[in-house]
Amino acid sequence: MKNKKEIIAGIIIIGNEILSGRTQDTNTSTLSIWLNSLGVKVQEVRAIPDIENIIVDTVNELRNKFNYVFTTGGIGPTHDDITASSISKAFKLTYGPHKEAMSILQKYYKPGEFTEGRQKMAWMPTSANLILNPTSGAPGFNIENVFCLPGVPSILKSMLGGINHMIIGGDPILSHTINLRTVESEIAKSLSSVQNNNKDVNIGSYPFFKAGKLGVAIVLRCSDQKKIDNCNLEIVKFVKEKNIEIVERD
Amino acid sequence: MKNKKEIIAGIIIIGNEILSGRTQDTNTSTLSIWLNSLGVKVQEVRAIPDIENIIVDTVNELRNKFNYVFTTGGIGPTHDDITASSISKAFKLTYGPHKEAMSILQKYYKPGEFTEGRQKMAWMPTSANLILNPTSGAPGFNIENVFCLPGVPSILKSMLGGINHMIIGGDPILSHTINLRTVESEIAKSLSSVQNNNKDVNIGSYPFFKAGKLGVAIVLRCSDQKKIDNCNLEIVKFVKEKNIEIVERD
Repeated sequence: MKNKKEIIAGIIIIGNEILSGRTQDTNTSTLSIWLNSLGVKVQEVRAIPDIENIIVDTVNELRNKFNYVFTTGGIGPTHDDITASSISKAFKLTYGPHKEAMSILQKYYKPGEFTEGRQKMAWMPTSANLILNPTSGAPGFNIENVFCLPGVPSILKSMLGGINHMIIGGDPILSHTINLRTVESEIAKSLSSVQNNNKDVNIGSYPFFKAGKLGVAIVLRCSDQKKIDNCNLEIVKFVKEKNIEIVERD
Repeated sequence: MKNKKEIIAGIIIIGNEILSGRTQDTNTSTLSIWLNSLGVKVQEVRAIPDIENIIVDTVNELRNKFNYVFTTGGIGPTHDDITASSISKAFKLTYGPHKEAMSILQKYYKPGEFTEGRQKMAWMPTSANLILNPTSGAPGFNIENVFCLPGVPSILKSMLGGINHMIIGGDPILSHTINLRTVESEIAKSLSSVQNNNKDVNIGSYPFFKAGKLGVAIVLRCSDQKKIDNCNLEIVKFVKEKNIEIVERD
């Protein structure tokens, strides 16, 4: 399954609100879909609390393990926003007001409104590259292979376009889905033999319920369209033999 | 912030479909809210791929680090369901047909329908404790402090009632939320000083958008209701001084 050109990433979701169940994380899927489109495969996601030594250790572990690391959350102005100071510690860099970030926020706010509370949003590793924020001014930042983004999903989304050019991916990961009106145990054996014949294609099998009916989504993932097509043909063959209905699904 | 009676848990979300962004995980918040109600705090969540050595290593790391570990996903009948065999390896236990699970599934299916494909769902560490599944028959299982649950959210939810009695929590974690019509930078300084006065209360600050208006949710979390009440009074005091509106929010 390992591709020579495989580029892998880790995501670190920082915030007690995710771990308490109060907030439903959606940034993982946003980042994963965006990274897939650039040929980067997400290999691990960790949600961790707002605790400095845990952030430092997790960032240091993952940045050595993956080509890219993305953090979300903890870069706002309040006392529980400790991502920027923790990342500075992880990289042993000076944490302080970032010149360019200060200047961006100074222009963003009306005269007199760039208060001490707001200035905290410009504090980060002073040598960081900025990630511009077209939605609400306060930038994210990048150090080496680590990209620090905010937790608010709409703001995070609006910032990805600005870092596209900084991500060098491998071959884009293509996918094809076949939805079947069946249950997994009916197709498990055939699917297993298709997987054995198509080792470069990652075949996933996911049961679903829709309008009270059971189904299984078969997802083929590979960077080579021909290999997906071949694998698809083998699946369609056994599906027809078994008289299983292929269904539409959004 | 550390409580003497603090009982902590880790969650391992197993499945390529989460990492690819295809499926939005919702089991984390289900498990976290349920665990909170039992006095267990989730300290880390990891989403990892369907790769045996990663599952083995992650389970072994987290079961030594936390009081409880919950895994979701990968216990179905298809080739990509490798959680049960991986957990057997992690604990160096025999992986095979579990007597009681075989008997449950034999009764669940009509005569002749308990096929080889379905029998795989009864394969697990042969000495495991079963976690009964009132929705679709196939049980989850428990070994020591590790609980293995399915990935389908509705099935997972239906199985939690059956393991309530197996989880010994600490003091239940209480929470109180105050929603303010303001932005974080307006209250950052005051909130920081309230946090300093109330070190046992975890104060989170979360911006929100509703009906086109900005707001901030302040969430107080602690196992002691009196400490939450005191902290709340201090917040209400500065909020009134600053003429900030407290708003309703569902």
